[in-house]
Amino acid sequence: MIAVSGATRLYAVLGDPVAQVQAPAMLNPVFADLGLDAVLVPVLAGAADLAEVVTGLQRIGNLDGLLITVPHKIEACAFADVLSPAVRAAGSTNAMRREADGRWTAENFDGAGFVLGLSAAGHELAGRRVTLVGAGGAGGAIAAAVLDAGAARLQVCDPDEERLSALLDRLAGHRPDRVAGGPVAELEGADLVVNATPLGLRPGDPLPFDPALTPAGAVVADIIMKPRRTALLRAAAAEGRLVHHGAHMLSHQLHLYRSFFRLAAPDRH
Amino acid sequence: MIAVSGATRLYAVLGDPVAQVQAPAMLNPVFADLGLDAVLVPVLAGAADLAEVVTGLQRIGNLDGLLITVPHKIEACAFADVLSPAVRAAGSTNAMRREADGRWTAENFDGAGFVLGLSAAGHELAGRRVTLVGAGGAGGAIAAAVLDAGAARLQVCDPDEERLSALLDRLAGHRPDRVAGGPVAELEGADLVVNATPLGLRPGDPLPFDPALTPAGAVVADIIMKPRRTALLRAAAAEGRLVHHGAHMLSHQLHLYRSFFRLAAPDRH
Repeated sequence: MIAVSGATRLYAVLGDPVAQVQAPAMLNPVFADLGLDAVLVPVLAGAADLAEVVTGLQRIGNLDGLLITVPHKIEACAFADVLSPAVRAAGSTNAMRREADGRWTAENFDGAGFVLGLSAAGHELAGRRVTLVGAGGAGGAIAAAVLDAGAARLQVCDPDEERLSALLDRLAGHRPDRVAGGPVAELEGADLVVNATPLGLRPGDPLPFDPALTPAGAVVADIIMKPRRTALLRAAAAEGRLVHHGAHMLSHQLHLYRSFFRLAAPDRH
Repeated sequence: MIAVSGATRLYAVLGDPVAQVQAPAMLNPVFADLGLDAVLVPVLAGAADLAEVVTGLQRIGNLDGLLITVPHKIEACAFADVLSPAVRAAGSTNAMRREADGRWTAENFDGAGFVLGLSAAGHELAGRRVTLVGAGGAGGAIAAAVLDAGAARLQVCDPDEERLSALLDRLAGHRPDRVAGGPVAELEGADLVVNATPLGLRPGDPLPFDPALTPAGAVVADIIMKPRRTALLRAAAAEGRLVHHGAHMLSHQLHLYRSFFRLAAPDRH
């Protein structure tokens, strides 16, 4: 990678925890390949500190963009001046950039990245029945993208009634006939079941749902990237289910980030 | 250097401008040599944004230390919980670290680094007459260290009466008989004349003083590191004066930073 100097441009990825995030290992080689003097650094920000950390980072003159991950994707929307359509549908953001006029635009690539990753693995969504566990930041993004990709039915479950209801309200504006919600995952009849909760990030977390209760031909997907083989995916594989790893969601976002942050090789003329 | 990952620890150097700062190019190889997963990044912070940037950075859980450079060395003291004796004498800080209890300690190595650099170049201060131009953050640090090193006389000049008077008050507690101050540099009889103003950072800056008016055997020193050969040092060399570059001040601070930030190779046992 490029050596950091005083002239290096900054990007930061915010999360809690942050040690497991893959974005620096994926984007820093992109900067290097393009010959850009830029670095993406991890930023550990607790929920109570999010406002001060984000507003502090946004005032750094050589910082051009932020990536946002668990658990800040929803709250971070408050620190953007412009929300993209995907952010408004999902109620969450995972990328923010500074515009030429100093305003900050929020985008969300989780949903598009997740759908692209599924498609690349041979799992098309058109006509499928999807159960989504977790109505948080990533869950909201995935829900909107899954509906846009033509899923026949989406059941969203979350024990937090208020959070679930807010997400259903946003989604109802798009395809109300295809969406249902409840506190418990409906696994029967599902073609695809997605974990969009943080359960599995920490050793000893309970499973977000029991993969043994999914249909025999179902795909079980996780959005957790580290560990790559979460306890959920190990249990699903042991039951003979097809599994889809969290890393796909991010790897298929790379070119979306490149475009959003306008990353291009410097003009040498 | 080490590739930045989610687990990388952060250090930041704050300045305005910041593109010219040498600290990342000097400290990042030290991290790599020690096998530390850490990176020092440049942070461009305008004076109006300093409070929000510093308090935001201090709330980042994986950020362990800050370096402070022009023009923030004085104002940054307000964001420390503990001020070292050098900071209290100088009224400025160039390094802050997070303690185990979460408090922030401010240190100032500009003075010690400057004196070490002069000594390594063969310029001892004991018994010498020193004229210091600029009573800002770096100037205050150098003034205290020059007196500690045994200078026979120190004249500090700054057109800002309030700033000069505050520095003289702090120094008067140490060696009041050896210190004088005024709005204009007294160059006659000086063995060493030091520029501690920002003049020379930007092309077209006026000279901080006229080196032709220094005694023939005087040493003319600059604390500006980039450009290495400032207009002042070029003019002084043209007059036949010995010159002392700004880079010496920082290069002799490296082991002071290592100790302050407790940088050591990880225990592999």
